[in-house]
Amino acid sequence: MPDDLAALLHELIVATRILANEKVLDAFGHVSVRHPRDPSRYFIPRHRAPELAEISDLVELTLDSEPVRPTDVRLYSERVIHGEIYKARPDVNAVCHHHAHAMMPYAISGRELVPVFHLGAVIGHVPFWDQHDEFGDTNMLVVKPEEGASLARALGPNWTVLMRNHGATVAGRSLRELTFRCVFGCDNAKLQSQAMAHGNVKSLAPGEIELTGAHQLRPPSMGRAWDYWVRQVERAGLMPGKAPQRKAAKTKVKAKRRR
Amino acid sequence: MPDDLAALLHELIVATRILANEKVLDAFGHVSVRHPRDPSRYFIPRHRAPELAEISDLVELTLDSEPVRPTDVRLYSERVIHGEIYKARPDVNAVCHHHAHAMMPYAISGRELVPVFHLGAVIGHVPFWDQHDEFGDTNMLVVKPEEGASLARALGPNWTVLMRNHGATVAGRSLRELTFRCVFGCDNAKLQSQAMAHGNVKSLAPGEIELTGAHQLRPPSMGRAWDYWVRQVERAGLMPGKAPQRKAAKTKVKAKRRR
Amino acid sequence: MPDDLAALLHELIVATRILANEKVLDAFGHVSVRHPRDPSRYFIPRHRAPELAEISDLVELTLDSEPVRPTDVRLYSERVIHGEIYKARPDVNAVCHHHAHAMMPYAISGRELVPVFHLGAVIGHVPFWDQHDEFGDTNMLVVKPEEGASLARALGPNWTVLMRNHGATVAGRSLRELTFRCVFGCDNAKLQSQAMAHGNVKSLAPGEIELTGAHQLRPPSMGRAWDYWVRQVERAGLMPGKAPQRKAAKTKVKAKRRR
Amino acid sequence: MPDDLAALLHELIVATRILANEKVLDAFGHVSVRHPRDPSRYFIPRHRAPELAEISDLVELTLDSEPVRPTDVRLYSERVIHGEIYKARPDVNAVCHHHAHAMMPYAISGRELVPVFHLGAVIGHVPFWDQHDEFGDTNMLVVKPEEGASLARALGPNWTVLMRNHGATVAGRSLRELTFRCVFGCDNAKLQSQAMAHGNVKSLAPGEIELTGAHQLRPPSMGRAWDYWVRQVERAGLMPGKAPQRKAAKTKVKAKRRR
Repeated sequence: MPDDLAALLHELIVATRILANEKVLDAFGHVSVRHPRDPSRYFIPRHRAPELAEISDLVELTLDSEPVRPTDVRLYSERVIHGEIYKARPDVNAVCHHHAHAMMPYAISGRELVPVFHLGAVIGHVPFWDQHDEFGDTNMLVVKPEEGASLARALGPNWTVLMRNHGATVAGRSLRELTFRCVFGCDNAKLQSQAMAHGNVKSLAPGEIELTGAHQLRPPSMGRAWDYWVRQVERAGLMPGKAPQRKAAKTKVKAKRRR
Repeated sequence: MPDDLAALLHELIVATRILANEKVLDAFGHVSVRHPRDPSRYFIPRHRAPELAEISDLVELTLDSEPVRPTDVRLYSERVIHGEIYKARPDVNAVCHHHAHAMMPYAISGRELVPVFHLGAVIGHVPFWDQHDEFGDTNMLVVKPEEGASLARALGPNWTVLMRNHGATVAGRSLRELTFRCVFGCDNAKLQSQAMAHGNVKSLAPGEIELTGAHQLRPPSMGRAWDYWVRQVERAGLMPGKAPQRKAAKTKVKAKRRR
Repeated sequence: MPDDLAALLHELIVATRILANEKVLDAFGHVSVRHPRDPSRYFIPRHRAPELAEISDLVELTLDSEPVRPTDVRLYSERVIHGEIYKARPDVNAVCHHHAHAMMPYAISGRELVPVFHLGAVIGHVPFWDQHDEFGDTNMLVVKPEEGASLARALGPNWTVLMRNHGATVAGRSLRELTFRCVFGCDNAKLQSQAMAHGNVKSLAPGEIELTGAHQLRPPSMGRAWDYWVRQVERAGLMPGKAPQRKAAKTKVKAKRRR
Repeated sequence: MPDDLAALLHELIVATRILANEKVLDAFGHVSVRHPRDPSRYFIPRHRAPELAEISDLVELTLDSEPVRPTDVRLYSERVIHGEIYKARPDVNAVCHHHAHAMMPYAISGRELVPVFHLGAVIGHVPFWDQHDEFGDTNMLVVKPEEGASLARALGPNWTVLMRNHGATVAGRSLRELTFRCVFGCDNAKLQSQAMAHGNVKSLAPGEIELTGAHQLRPPSMGRAWDYWVRQVERAGLMPGKAPQRKAAKTKVKAKRRR
């Protein structure tokens, strides 16, 4: 297994720990990354709290969200969210589904979430998806391929979609972009709620959203934030081992799966 | 004392530490579990802050909330809450009484608490109990058997009851279900308050509450959350010793009580 | 110096650390205790952030807030708050002045603070003092004896007084009662603000306030909370040395003061 | 390099860690200090999250925000904020630009920020700057000298300026004054928002603002708060090495820059 894949899977776990440490994820939610050389596959942890996931917990799935190799580990029932978005959006290489407290009020109240500060520009337009419209009463989880496909249609060409009384799903061109959008999307949501309490919300102008969003997703800005979040993860004692060590762990996992 | 009871009492302490660490409990509040083989008895710590309670602090009470064996330790004056609910509800095996800041606003404002996200579906319908209606001016504690019985009647077939200007009492079929309902009930309360500040609260549809609540209480979902909370308790340095060690401690306590 | 005084001064530092750890105090605010055998004197730290105060920082003042023994350490400019309340209220043995974020909104909005949950009953009636009424434009600190006396008059027979655009001052019969009232007074303030956001605040009935406040100030309830807060102080690494060790430290301080 | 400059640069890093620890700064924002003997130069870290900046990351810039010595490290694109304020305001010796969550709601809602408690008096009058007024759609960053000069004009003779949908910039006569104004300015903003939620905001009287602001910026008050914040930075494990150690590090950096 080449180093770049090992490094990518390590980055997936680091991104997940960042999102847990920044309170985007808790016991629930999940993060995935598309295979860097085979766009028809993606990696996601087995069913467990994202903060607890190790590289050895990663499984490789097809875009139909079926395991590439037989496995008896339990998988996230909502993994179709990831597979269906990867199918619909070739430009997306990383996906996060979460129930962050910052964003949930919008999923409950139905209020529109709009960019209210420069870093929040990266959320762009945020559509709202109501599973009930198409599927009626359900257990509210996105478990059928057609449910995932419906969510992916609602996302459309955008990068964040709110899910009624459930949560949000966020996409990125890379893990770093995804992490940046998740954290500052939640910051934007918190700040908008506070401005709503002030009785007046002024959002960015359309031209500002375009210029600012593009600027913030350039490597210097994303790298600076990533380094900061990694330090917080280190301080919290949540950093996984280094990528080289992980490579060994990965091999063992694959061996186990082959059995 | 057989292993399963030792394991259950260890789980009671772990559940209590989780609820303290998740800010459901503070200096006050208490958690109990019904005896697994004798439904006419339950275990609860002696009078002390729940986070500080050890297995050696557990006492065994009848459903009249009297100690099974003579003891000179101080007991919670509100233990009748537990005993009277165990009497009225054979399906309940674990009870928590708390004053979590997330839920108190509802106990003060009288606003109805409703499921507003999928994990919050586990609270179901939440009745409101006003001790003053039946008992007039009191010190607001539920200390008489008839006060506990009144609260149990208000709870009815439900799983959470709000207590006016006082707090909430939550029931579960197991300690894990109780913990899940307490934590996500508080999350639901926080999120509903935030949606109220947005000026619009959309709750789950009745059919969704039923399907979603039942689904979330299945073992995979509860187990995933439990593992996450245990990890947080470990990280906070709050984990009690392992069950086997506790068994020994338990024996010593019982010996002490016999004296 | 007899053991009971050494123990009391140690308790003063522990109470101060508790109030810092519970976010009642920050860089500012101060806590004092009356001399247990000479009601015309009280102890308070020299001018420094309360969390940082050690027993060796305590100075002994007359009720005119002058040092009993000459000292060249800087004293709190607002120490007259303490002296004037001790003069006016022989039943008060401990005083805390703070700017806790929980209570400040009431000092700014002028909204009445009322008991909204059983533990909050210990605040009773909370009068509002506006220094400007009597003294016009000032630097807003209570530094003159007549300013302290005015505040003490506003406090009257009550236990907490709000100070316009400044903070609150709280009194207790003992350090434990003071600590209990400060912490749960702040909790009450937070919860009332949240209930205000719900659009409805139901306070305790007058009879409930009386019965409940008295009950909560009995030793078992106060002791249980005290033990919990001490554990949090220990976990935060903020616990001062044990009383016996402090006794030695105390002796050194006194020696230094005599020079 | 004389000791006082070494000490000042150490203080710059300590102030920055304090502002990070007190949640004024996060991944973004920056703090600078004017050269103590050459008012035409100032020091600011290279482009990285402020909490992570070490003395070895400091660069020396002219008031046109160009490096005094050639360097290939990346600089903050918004450093003109600092240079243009130092040009316009000879009395300013330290500047902080931040996006603190406490203040952002005002930058979004446009509500006026006013002193609402004695410690908040140090913010004085807070003007509001909208980059769009003069520059139309931009990426919202203040990167051109004329943008920085416009912001400095909006600041005028004041000490804090709000930036629409972006953040705030704060000035001080010294690093300690700057730190004090940043922290208590944010506290003031939080408390004002809470009083707004109470439906009534009473600000300090003009005479009170003048008397109180001046009093709080005297050394005893600022020193007491500084010592408290330093202790919190130490407890968080964020304290940089002592100034003498830094002096050595500094020398190495300068050597590197000369190459």
